[in-house]
Amino acid sequence: MSIYEKIAALGIVLPEVTPPVAVFVPFVRSGNLIFVSGHIAKENGKPWVGQLGLNVTTEQGIKASRGVAIDLLATLNLAVGDLNKIKRIVKLMFLVNSAPTFTEQHLVANGASELMVQVFGENGMHARSAFGAAQVPFGSCVEIDLIAEVEE
Amino acid sequence: MSIYEKIAALGIVLPEVTPPVAVFVPFVRSGNLIFVSGHIAKENGKPWVGQLGLNVTTEQGIKASRGVAIDLLATLNLAVGDLNKIKRIVKLMFLVNSAPTFTEQHLVANGASELMVQVFGENGMHARSAFGAAQVPFGSCVEIDLIAEVEE
Amino acid sequence: MSIYEKIAALGIVLPEVTPPVAVFVPFVRSGNLIFVSGHIAKENGKPWVGQLGLNVTTEQGIKASRGVAIDLLATLNLAVGDLNKIKRIVKLMFLVNSAPTFTEQHLVANGASELMVQVFGENGMHARSAFGAAQVPFGSCVEIDLIAEVEE
Repeated sequence: MSIYEKIAALGIVLPEVTPPVAVFVPFVRSGNLIFVSGHIAKENGKPWVGQLGLNVTTEQGIKASRGVAIDLLATLNLAVGDLNKIKRIVKLMFLVNSAPTFTEQHLVANGASELMVQVFGENGMHARSAFGAAQVPFGSCVEIDLIAEVEE
Repeated sequence: MSIYEKIAALGIVLPEVTPPVAVFVPFVRSGNLIFVSGHIAKENGKPWVGQLGLNVTTEQGIKASRGVAIDLLATLNLAVGDLNKIKRIVKLMFLVNSAPTFTEQHLVANGASELMVQVFGENGMHARSAFGAAQVPFGSCVEIDLIAEVEE
Repeated sequence: MSIYEKIAALGIVLPEVTPPVAVFVPFVRSGNLIFVSGHIAKENGKPWVGQLGLNVTTEQGIKASRGVAIDLLATLNLAVGDLNKIKRIVKLMFLVNSAPTFTEQHLVANGASELMVQVFGENGMHARSAFGAAQVPFGSCVEIDLIAEVEE
């Protein structure tokens, strides 16, 4: 199965990539590495506002995290032109909008981590860091950035 | 215009780089990538203390962010010897010292992002992540680190 | 002295690397760079729970940070097979679990930074970013991730 067949089999439709409204870009390629900007969780196209441990449950956070991963895939697709050329998902950084008492950032992160493995298999097994952010732009509950390696 | 002419035209004088007081360095080059350490916002040579959403306004944060970008340029200059050799500003990470209610980290980030584009043009268009930190060393209101690519 | 002799001279025994319980890996190599996942501080094999500025002192944080560095060395050892092949410790990111008033993240970071230099000498001098996280997975007081360069 190609990566696109796997994405379709998961019932996922890659969204259009919204260009950032500021003076930065969704991704930069340097050598074989693609650095993807932090993507925030959205619901119905708007920031998914809330904080884990306050008014967003871990289950909701996992769903939000998976949603961000889909947006990251769409940006990667734009960056590479063909997701089958992704050699490895290298690193994910998870900024979980967290009340001072919330300590399940790793569970929230799994929402995106699992999707990467479902889509890319072994090549989707990544290094990662997950932690609690005091806040996230637009009040979104999760932000994730990513480094991927492309075939030469 | 060379990069230095652009910097001068913006009325910017690159500061001396203060070596860190601890067991780390301002930058490390690995291959064509330069990894620059987190630089904190300063005012008159001292940490610019404060927290967004508490006692630092978004406008002040933007100014602080731009100030950090100038310090990052000075460190890049030290790293490369000639800023015209910077091929691309790859990635910026913004740690905005944020009260739990402050959600405009992206606006604060623009202070530095805009300067990068003013100085490097298209090569200054970077990927970035911005989020709220619970605190920043010395209580500074903004910290930024950076990855840049150098010509071979 | 080899790196292993230096580690032994510091009285350090590298621990077994515990594989992550989720769908990610402790490290990914891409080209000559090794990206190591965030490692949390542990005490007696369990998460070292607490927050700087609340119930963990700076001195304890420094000790926790050094402990994480030892775990990072063990993971690097697993990644490379021979720590003498590490060309450079490139970058460390420190997520210090911080109450909103704690501003000594740089001191906590020194615990790990100093160990890197004790073990690798000049090749251990790294770029770094340190800041306050609102929380860390499992409530651990410190999390650190790392990028290292390997000899070709």
